[in-house]
Amino acid sequence: MNKLINDPANVVSDALRGVADAHPDLRVDHEQRIVYRADSPVRGKVGLISGGGSGHEPLHAGFVGPGMLDAACAGEIFTSPVPDQMLAATKAVDGGAGVLHIVKNYTGDVMNFEMAAELAAAETKVAVASVVTDDDVAVQDSLYTAGRRGVGVTVLVEKIAGAAAEQGRSLAEVTDVARAVNANGRSMGMALTSCTVPAAGKPTFELPDGQMEIGIGIHGEPGRRRVPTASAAEVAEMLVGPILSDLDFTGGSGVIAFVNGMGATPMIELYVMYHEIATILAKAGVTVARTLVGSYITSLDMAGCSVTLVKADDEILGLWDAPVRTPALRW
Amino acid sequence: MNKLINDPANVVSDALRGVADAHPDLRVDHEQRIVYRADSPVRGKVGLISGGGSGHEPLHAGFVGPGMLDAACAGEIFTSPVPDQMLAATKAVDGGAGVLHIVKNYTGDVMNFEMAAELAAAETKVAVASVVTDDDVAVQDSLYTAGRRGVGVTVLVEKIAGAAAEQGRSLAEVTDVARAVNANGRSMGMALTSCTVPAAGKPTFELPDGQMEIGIGIHGEPGRRRVPTASAAEVAEMLVGPILSDLDFTGGSGVIAFVNGMGATPMIELYVMYHEIATILAKAGVTVARTLVGSYITSLDMAGCSVTLVKADDEILGLWDAPVRTPALRW
Repeated sequence: MNKLINDPANVVSDALRGVADAHPDLRVDHEQRIVYRADSPVRGKVGLISGGGSGHEPLHAGFVGPGMLDAACAGEIFTSPVPDQMLAATKAVDGGAGVLHIVKNYTGDVMNFEMAAELAAAETKVAVASVVTDDDVAVQDSLYTAGRRGVGVTVLVEKIAGAAAEQGRSLAEVTDVARAVNANGRSMGMALTSCTVPAAGKPTFELPDGQMEIGIGIHGEPGRRRVPTASAAEVAEMLVGPILSDLDFTGGSGVIAFVNGMGATPMIELYVMYHEIATILAKAGVTVARTLVGSYITSLDMAGCSVTLVKADDEILGLWDAPVRTPALRW
Repeated sequence: MNKLINDPANVVSDALRGVADAHPDLRVDHEQRIVYRADSPVRGKVGLISGGGSGHEPLHAGFVGPGMLDAACAGEIFTSPVPDQMLAATKAVDGGAGVLHIVKNYTGDVMNFEMAAELAAAETKVAVASVVTDDDVAVQDSLYTAGRRGVGVTVLVEKIAGAAAEQGRSLAEVTDVARAVNANGRSMGMALTSCTVPAAGKPTFELPDGQMEIGIGIHGEPGRRRVPTASAAEVAEMLVGPILSDLDFTGGSGVIAFVNGMGATPMIELYVMYHEIATILAKAGVTVARTLVGSYITSLDMAGCSVTLVKADDEILGLWDAPVRTPALRW
């Protein structure tokens, strides 16, 4: 296993030490494995927390900072954090305006965030709301998931809801914005290689050279089908086609188009893909209003990519454009 | 060959189309393969251009924008651009204050940028200066290089000189700043896997599983030695040790510490590495003033990392902190 790690058992805690060392404007609770904005709680602002299994970096810790998340709870690799972490984060980021939980739709995450919300209701006066992202059109149910999986749209929900919270909107308003982004977002991904979980020490699945998996999940869950590798133009069709079939993306103020690398995909390939995707969207009459190209929700060292589209109105675009200052997204 | 590309012969032009599609605030000359700030030339500002072989993305096109480069010339994969491209870019970005060429120390790049500067002197009245980066402590001469190779420090030179130019400093002053950053910067890299050049279709070199190459170049050039894979802590020692032996990084206002992924390295591993590097620097009495962790100067799909340290004074840190708005670096 060729990885830049120490003991496979300590990858998450070692990485959190690196996050703390590299980013003095974050505060890391190493015991609870929670990454905070150093200035949290922000009085009067809705607190945003997210979290999930590790291995998807920069999601979620890389999105903690002004204009995005107040805290991120890190689980073990591909394993949900526990309710105690989410409860601690909920208490810590509450600035008096309530806390929104942003949860990817995986059984463990959903259950543990629900339990944390119940504990918060029992133990505290903090108002808690939650949004569950479920944007992956590839499969209906899957390993770890009832319903659709939450993938790329989560990054956009965190950015856009984060901006709404920063503007001082109420918990109900921030929750509505987050749900609207998820409802108007669809994604699909593919893999050229498996990822390797450090503790397992071998690839999660076998993908022979010359084959690719279309509709892959971010934990290496099976997708729709395995097919021979194809050109970027053909891969773009295989990903964008199902997304456009699932929701009408024409009209409105256009879409936010997000092309994401799965962890081991070089930028040059993401730009080749982006051109093919932009070409398909133009032919389909879909206007691209904003773009994001890079590796933001990954699956360890998997090679491959995903496409996420969010249909936007001017309000959503304004929130997208609002300033953000996190390790992985800043403008 | 599992890559998200179309015809291997068209990877660079396809990727440049994606860059143009994704970034409306850049202007791409597809004929000449030059990426410009859309608002260039900026009147009264020193123009900064760089360029080199493709395959190192986001370097250089990803660093074009306010506060950094005015233009980037793209060569074929791992092949220098030609003097005509550099000449065209030089003419196009001149705002009356002259143009600085930022050149990585590889024989082809140095020769072609020199020729472009001579052509500019013969054909135009544009004042041209140049800085050659040569920060790689791994080897003295190498494939493609007389003297040390130019690697990670190039990113920092482009950012810091870009800020100096944005402030309205003269060509001589901007050149001095760029040279000071290079003179105070040292790097070393390693690879866990080879890269695969699309046109070749097979790995550039053979690196058996369980082996790594210490002191690798960004084109897969051989390093200092091949050794069994080791822990992140041991790899950090192998990279930081030679850097600290080469230059005294104590004192001043501290260092800018840059941990870079080679293209296929997930963020979680870069943060594990950063913690080990920060630990070594603290023990060595080196103060870290600023950090950069991510994949900014890559070698296609190579897995591995490099470390760059730049010894800074308050002026350099101020230029580092100045606003920048490019696809890959923005704050």
